[in-house]
Amino acid sequence: MGEFDLIRRCFARGPAAPARRALLGIGDDCALLDVGATLAVSTDMLVEGRHFFADVDPRALGHKCLAVNLSDLAAMGAEPLAFTLSIALPPTRAADQGWLDAFARGLFDLADAHACELIGGDTTAGPLVVSIAIFGRLDARRALRRDAARVGDLVYVSGRLGDAALALRALQGEIALDRPALADARARLEWPAPRVALGRALSACAPQSVHAAIDLSDGLAGDLAHILEASGVGADIDLDAVPMSAALAAQPEAVRAACALAGGDDYELCFTAAPEAATTMARIAAEQGVPLTRIGHIVADPGLRWRSGTEVRDLRLRGYDHFA
Amino acid sequence: MGEFDLIRRCFARGPAAPARRALLGIGDDCALLDVGATLAVSTDMLVEGRHFFADVDPRALGHKCLAVNLSDLAAMGAEPLAFTLSIALPPTRAADQGWLDAFARGLFDLADAHACELIGGDTTAGPLVVSIAIFGRLDARRALRRDAARVGDLVYVSGRLGDAALALRALQGEIALDRPALADARARLEWPAPRVALGRALSACAPQSVHAAIDLSDGLAGDLAHILEASGVGADIDLDAVPMSAALAAQPEAVRAACALAGGDDYELCFTAAPEAATTMARIAAEQGVPLTRIGHIVADPGLRWRSGTEVRDLRLRGYDHFA
Repeated sequence: MGEFDLIRRCFARGPAAPARRALLGIGDDCALLDVGATLAVSTDMLVEGRHFFADVDPRALGHKCLAVNLSDLAAMGAEPLAFTLSIALPPTRAADQGWLDAFARGLFDLADAHACELIGGDTTAGPLVVSIAIFGRLDARRALRRDAARVGDLVYVSGRLGDAALALRALQGEIALDRPALADARARLEWPAPRVALGRALSACAPQSVHAAIDLSDGLAGDLAHILEASGVGADIDLDAVPMSAALAAQPEAVRAACALAGGDDYELCFTAAPEAATTMARIAAEQGVPLTRIGHIVADPGLRWRSGTEVRDLRLRGYDHFA
Repeated sequence: MGEFDLIRRCFARGPAAPARRALLGIGDDCALLDVGATLAVSTDMLVEGRHFFADVDPRALGHKCLAVNLSDLAAMGAEPLAFTLSIALPPTRAADQGWLDAFARGLFDLADAHACELIGGDTTAGPLVVSIAIFGRLDARRALRRDAARVGDLVYVSGRLGDAALALRALQGEIALDRPALADARARLEWPAPRVALGRALSACAPQSVHAAIDLSDGLAGDLAHILEASGVGADIDLDAVPMSAALAAQPEAVRAACALAGGDDYELCFTAAPEAATTMARIAAEQGVPLTRIGHIVADPGLRWRSGTEVRDLRLRGYDHFA
C-alpha cells in the first residue's frame, strides 16, 4: 500500500461521514475553510533521515520546512498569513543553542519575507521531526484547484525541474558534478524558493484564463497525475520542452528523466491555462522574473503520455511515494 | 534549558519582528487569527515512547491525539470546526491495516462527536509521530485567555485531577491499584474527554463572570502558573479542596500531590471567575454534568501558594517539562 492509498483507505470518509464543514477538504494543495473570509490551510511534516540529512545546515532546514508549506499556499494562489510549528527534538539538539538559533533564523527570514507570522506550536523531546501548518487567505472563486483542468488547456511549469534531485544524487555519490554545478543544484535542494508571488499572479487570472495548479514536491509525473485524476482528463507532455539546467541537460537520458520528471523537491508550480492566455503568461513570466514554459496540453483521453517529436515514450515514471 | 525557555529564547520575536497578523499569538491555548470571523488555532504533537507506549491501543491513540487538541479549543471557549493530521509511520505500521483502521476509528469517532472535520494532512515514513493542527471559531471578546485573571477571582477546576498520572505509575509498576481502580484511572489516561461543551458554556459568561482559563495538560502547578504569569497575579490554593478520585485519595500524601498537582494529562479546565458568579458556576456544573470545584483564589502577590488549613506548604512542584 502506497502513501496515497493509505490516505484514501484510512482517512477518506464514506457516505456515512457527517456534514462537510470545509469548502474543499482532503486532496488538494490546501483545504479551504470558510470562516467569514476563505482560509487556505495546509500542513507538511519533515523527518530527519527522510526529508533531510542529520548534518543539514540548520538555517537551511528552518528555511525549507516553511518553504514547502508556503509552496502549498502558492499552488492554491493564496496569500500567506500565519503558521504553527510543532517540533520534536533530541535532547542534544534542544541543548545546542547555536543549532536552534540558526534553525529559527532560517525559518523567520523566510517567514518575514512573506509577512507570515508564527502564531503557535508545540515542542517536545523525540526524534527530529518538524511539522508546520500554514494559513493563507484567498478569494475562493480564484482558487487554483487540482480539479479545474480543461481539455485544450496548455500545461505550464515554472522555473527549471530536476536540480534538487540531481543534487541529491551527487551528494550520495551516484553522479559527479563540478563544483559550481553542485553548488547551484544544492541550493535548489536546500533553499527552495516557494512561488508565492507567481501563485498570486496566476490566481488573479483564474478562473477565466488559469485553471488548475499544483506544486511539484513529488515530481512532475506524480504531481501532474494528481491534476489529471482530479479533473478527469489526460495530458500529452513534450519531453523535449521540460525546462532543465545545463548541468542536468548534460546528464545521460535516464538521469535527466528520473530527475526532471520524477525527482521531487522542485517546489515549482505546474498549472494549466487556456491557449488564449499565452500572451498573458508571457507577461506574468516577465513581471515575476520566472520562466514559464509550455510543456504540453490537456486532452480528453485519461492518462499521462510523454512524447519526444512524433514518438510516444513509455517511461513508467511515478512520483515519490514514502511507502512504495 | 527547559521547554518553555526554549520556546521563548528561540521562537519569541523581539522588537525587530514584522507587524503582527494575529489577534493573539504564541503563549495561550490557541492563537486567534482574524479572517472575517475569529479563528482559534492550536497544534499538539505526540511522539511514541514520550506521550504513549508502543503497544498502545491504536483506537485510544487516535482518540487521544485529537482529544488533546480539542482540549486546547475548550480552554479558549472555541467551537471546533476542522483539523489537519500529519503522521509519520514506521513501514510496519503503515502495512498494518488493522492498526490503521483502529487509529482512524478512534480519531473519527471523537471528531464526529464534535462535528470537527479532517480537512488535510501529510503522511510520511518515519518514527511514529502524530501532529494535529485544529481550528475553531469564537467571539474574540469572549475568548478565555490566560492573561485575564483578576485579583479576587475564585480559581476552579473541572472534574477530578491526577487519575491519568496515577494510572501511569500503576502501569509502570510503581504503585499497586486494584483492578477496577486501575481500569478507571487508565480510562482517564487513554481516553481523555476534552471539555469542549464546558468551555463553550464558560465562554458565554466571559468576560463579565469568567475570566482566564487553561487546560490541564502538564499538571495544575505548571499550568496554573502560566495563568498567574500571564495575568501578573498570584494564587492561594487549598490543597484539601483539590478534587480527586477515591483511589488517588487513598494513596500516600507524596503520591497524591505528585499526581493531582503535577501529574499532567488531566485535560480538565482550570479557570478563574468572579466571586459573584458562584451560583452560575453551580448551574453550569449541573447542566454539564461536570463537577466544578473551587480550589482557591487569585491574589495580588505573585506566585502560587499551597495551603492546608492555616498552614502554607512548600511543595516545590513543577509542571511537566519535556526538556527538564
